Amino acid sequence: MRTQYHEQLDSLTAQLGAMCELAGTAMERATQALLQADLVLAEQVITDHDQMSALSTRAEESAFVLLALQAPVAGDLRSVVGSIQIVADVDRMGALALHVAKIARRRHPQHALPEEVNGYFAEMGRVAVELGHAAREVLITRDPEKAARIQEEDDAMDDLHRHLFTVLMDRDWKYGVTAAVDVTLLSRFYERFADHAVEVARRVIFQVTGVYPDGETIPQQQ
Amino acid sequence: MRTQYHEQLDSLTAQLGAMCELAGTAMERATQALLQADLVLAEQVITDHDQMSALSTRAEESAFVLLALQAPVAGDLRSVVGSIQIVADVDRMGALALHVAKIARRRHPQHALPEEVNGYFAEMGRVAVELGHAAREVLITRDPEKAARIQEEDDAMDDLHRHLFTVLMDRDWKYGVTAAVDVTLLSRFYERFADHAVEVARRVIFQVTGVYPDGETIPQQQ
Repeated sequence: MRTQYHEQLDSLTAQLGAMCELAGTAMERATQALLQADLVLAEQVITDHDQMSALSTRAEESAFVLLALQAPVAGDLRSVVGSIQIVADVDRMGALALHVAKIARRRHPQHALPEEVNGYFAEMGRVAVELGHAAREVLITRDPEKAARIQEEDDAMDDLHRHLFTVLMDRDWKYGVTAAVDVTLLSRFYERFADHAVEVARRVIFQVTGVYPDGETIPQQQ
Repeated sequence: MRTQYHEQLDSLTAQLGAMCELAGTAMERATQALLQADLVLAEQVITDHDQMSALSTRAEESAFVLLALQAPVAGDLRSVVGSIQIVADVDRMGALALHVAKIARRRHPQHALPEEVNGYFAEMGRVAVELGHAAREVLITRDPEKAARIQEEDDAMDDLHRHLFTVLMDRDWKYGVTAAVDVTLLSRFYERFADHAVEVARRVIFQVTGVYPDGETIPQQQ
């Protein structure tokens, strides 16, 4: 039987899912802005970030209303509090997309990236969009197998991040220190975006199984 | 009159305060390890991080017990849920100190930093320790004026971060790309450490006053 509590919890989950999609879209557009030195698109990501902040506030408020009015216990309590923790992770994913867009804007009309590394960032952008979708799916389906997919995408992101550092450090980098600094920060932003998606999945799996996906019972922030 | 609820909440607050101190100490030691290329100290920070993870888990569990057994409402509910959000911020401060220590370890026996920027990082380390103390004080006293002190320290950290980028980008940087990448990441870690301390203070002030220190009522992740 459906209770009002479960309807409200489903609505909260849908809000979190919408935030994940929004974060993925923001990172997709920020990546395009970066690769094409597209100022209009960068500005759009920056403006749209207000929407993410508004959704975060609304989701947090929904969770509080649920806690206050429904006084859930045990597993239900963990789900609602877990949702509040997830809001912070997804909000941060949006902020990282914002940071990427701001670097694109700062360097306009120049490209922030040397052409040599465009391929890495195009791929990082693609993975970020996948992570946004996947995080939404994990939230809604609560399926541990879908959570494993997030782990794979995160591994892909980590590989890209590491390869980029090899390009930066080991080869004959000829684009100067400013580009090196931008590439370092940008790569870090994508890596952190993925880490937060992993964290969303870990929290969902913990809610479902009582155990974190890596087998430990201790929350772990990377 | 003291209730069991308030005793448990005070105990939770004390745990969060201890975590702030631990994060500050970790960043202090990581900074020493960085400046002196001190491998033993770097290893100690890395080992001690387990303690932070354990404290995070315990604090989160204490908050859940409080929610489950005491079923707080209204402002009390916000305090307890706020504590769970604060755990994530302080845990992250510890992780950032860990990242600094890991860079010191990776470059050992070399120094990660060119001597020219040592002064900046010594100062960033000093500010980080102050932030650890100040965050603990804000948690325990719930004093908005002490929260303002955190904002000042954060401004100081932002200034240092910006100056470092000027050194990296505008002058005749002669230490190569590897050092530039390390300095970029390290500076970012200190800046984020300060951001999380600010976030702790903002959450406490919101719990006390119902308004965030910057006058808005919307949670804002930088």
